Amino acid sequence: MGRVTERRRVIRIRDGAVSTRPDTLVAEEPLEIRLGGKPLAITMRTPGDDFALAAGFLVSEGVLASADELANIVYCAGATAEGENTYNVVDVRLADGVPVPEITLERNVYTTSSCGLCGKASLDAVRTTTRWPLDASPAAPDGSDPVRSDPNRHDQVRIDPIRIDPTTLAALPDRLRAAQRVFERTGGLHAAALFTTDGELLDIREDVGRHNAVDKIVGRALQQGQLPLSSCVLMVSGRASFELAQKAVMAGVPVLAAVSAPSSLAVDLAVETGLTLVGFLRGSSMNIYAGEHRIALPSGAATSTD
Amino acid sequence: MGRVTERRRVIRIRDGAVSTRPDTLVAEEPLEIRLGGKPLAITMRTPGDDFALAAGFLVSEGVLASADELANIVYCAGATAEGENTYNVVDVRLADGVPVPEITLERNVYTTSSCGLCGKASLDAVRTTTRWPLDASPAAPDGSDPVRSDPNRHDQVRIDPIRIDPTTLAALPDRLRAAQRVFERTGGLHAAALFTTDGELLDIREDVGRHNAVDKIVGRALQQGQLPLSSCVLMVSGRASFELAQKAVMAGVPVLAAVSAPSSLAVDLAVETGLTLVGFLRGSSMNIYAGEHRIALPSGAATSTD
Repeated sequence: MGRVTERRRVIRIRDGAVSTRPDTLVAEEPLEIRLGGKPLAITMRTPGDDFALAAGFLVSEGVLASADELANIVYCAGATAEGENTYNVVDVRLADGVPVPEITLERNVYTTSSCGLCGKASLDAVRTTTRWPLDASPAAPDGSDPVRSDPNRHDQVRIDPIRIDPTTLAALPDRLRAAQRVFERTGGLHAAALFTTDGELLDIREDVGRHNAVDKIVGRALQQGQLPLSSCVLMVSGRASFELAQKAVMAGVPVLAAVSAPSSLAVDLAVETGLTLVGFLRGSSMNIYAGEHRIALPSGAATSTD
Repeated sequence: MGRVTERRRVIRIRDGAVSTRPDTLVAEEPLEIRLGGKPLAITMRTPGDDFALAAGFLVSEGVLASADELANIVYCAGATAEGENTYNVVDVRLADGVPVPEITLERNVYTTSSCGLCGKASLDAVRTTTRWPLDASPAAPDGSDPVRSDPNRHDQVRIDPIRIDPTTLAALPDRLRAAQRVFERTGGLHAAALFTTDGELLDIREDVGRHNAVDKIVGRALQQGQLPLSSCVLMVSGRASFELAQKAVMAGVPVLAAVSAPSSLAVDLAVETGLTLVGFLRGSSMNIYAGEHRIALPSGAATSTD
């Protein structure tokens, strides 16, 4: 299963000079995820960590939230003409009593919204599906708990508030890049990494698809009984789309940081769910789009406007 | 429908200084594509050119290949509690006699491959589905046509060979970036552009999803009766995945050029179908991964090895 990279011949042109040489490319193969034997989704991914990818995908979809809900994951024996196992089809079996969701057309919980499909419905779907609502506001001055004191939310697991220093955040992109092994050789992978609030690297995954890299992180955490990831920062190498923000929320991650820009809907989801969303994290600079109560800003600093 | 960007408040940290200001973000909203009233796919996209996106998506899926196969595309009246049209659901109606495909689980033709799912099956699905096979080899020295002279391929439309100069290719990234209007303001969009072999810009689309940008280009071309795009170069701002190579092949585009790295499966698809695939197109440098017979290399240059 070590098919993370592949070699191909390439004709290289550099300043008019032409040469032929081997090149290392990131491997891309389809993966079909089945649930109890029924096809659920196909994703184009970089082979490796396939069971984690499948588990993390099901966390994002609201199907799985803890290791004991998962019975097992296996590769399906192939049905090619040669009868071989392609290692591109996995079947996930849920533990007894865990409800099997309806098979949906597409790979996101927002498909549960119907004809009036809109951004708001997508946000609502995530907010009402997650097992671990984040606290959307700082601890009250009197020490009372804004979530636990809400009688409508007594059935939910409260994520303890965390606080992170901007200088710690600023150090994460370099650590992410330093830990990217395959990118160096191919220039072709997205990376996702999990850090503590002190900036310690806990896990990193690389994949040709950015959503797969996050699913692999989350699925590994589920397999190790670490969900919700309530004291972690999730860092992604590219942009922050709605889908990535959704995956952070569904895994109980309170802080999502991205090297590049977020989309409008990612910001809206962060505001709606209490997720801290940091974008354009480069050098000592960053933009905080939501959840600034988890960022240790100099007191009073955030009130100045330019 | 001018929701290409949206404004949100952001807390900006620059070298320790903190300020609050408005920021321009790329808009992201779900779009549901229906075919004859039945849901086919949901994609997260930047609003705008939605009919072109739906049409181009159906070209990539092998459902549509010419404007006369398309009856019409409409926005579905919304079914929100308020009864409004969200402009996030489009319904495509095919012309009489055009076969309606089976609704598939996922949004790609490679889903037609079954349990033995593998890269090869994905390649075969595209190669056998496209209406416009590309010529995989240079014109024969005797002037005979390698496709038309193959008795097994007499039912297929031959794409006339084109030839492009490396210096023309090298100029495309700057032209793409110069034409990107929304990226300047948000840093958050992927772009796809269509050029002539002389480097003239024919069309450019920006979207939060790279596959959507390409679908919008292809769909617009279908609507204007311009498929196959047999004398064009498709340029994308990021990486070249299998999915983007598939879209090029399905639209009859003979040359795909990307600013960044291709994946292994994108290269394999290009080799298999005769697509010219150029990656790492930056400054005067580029890598040619497949289809070099369409690139006007200095004669004999490609034989040197370093």
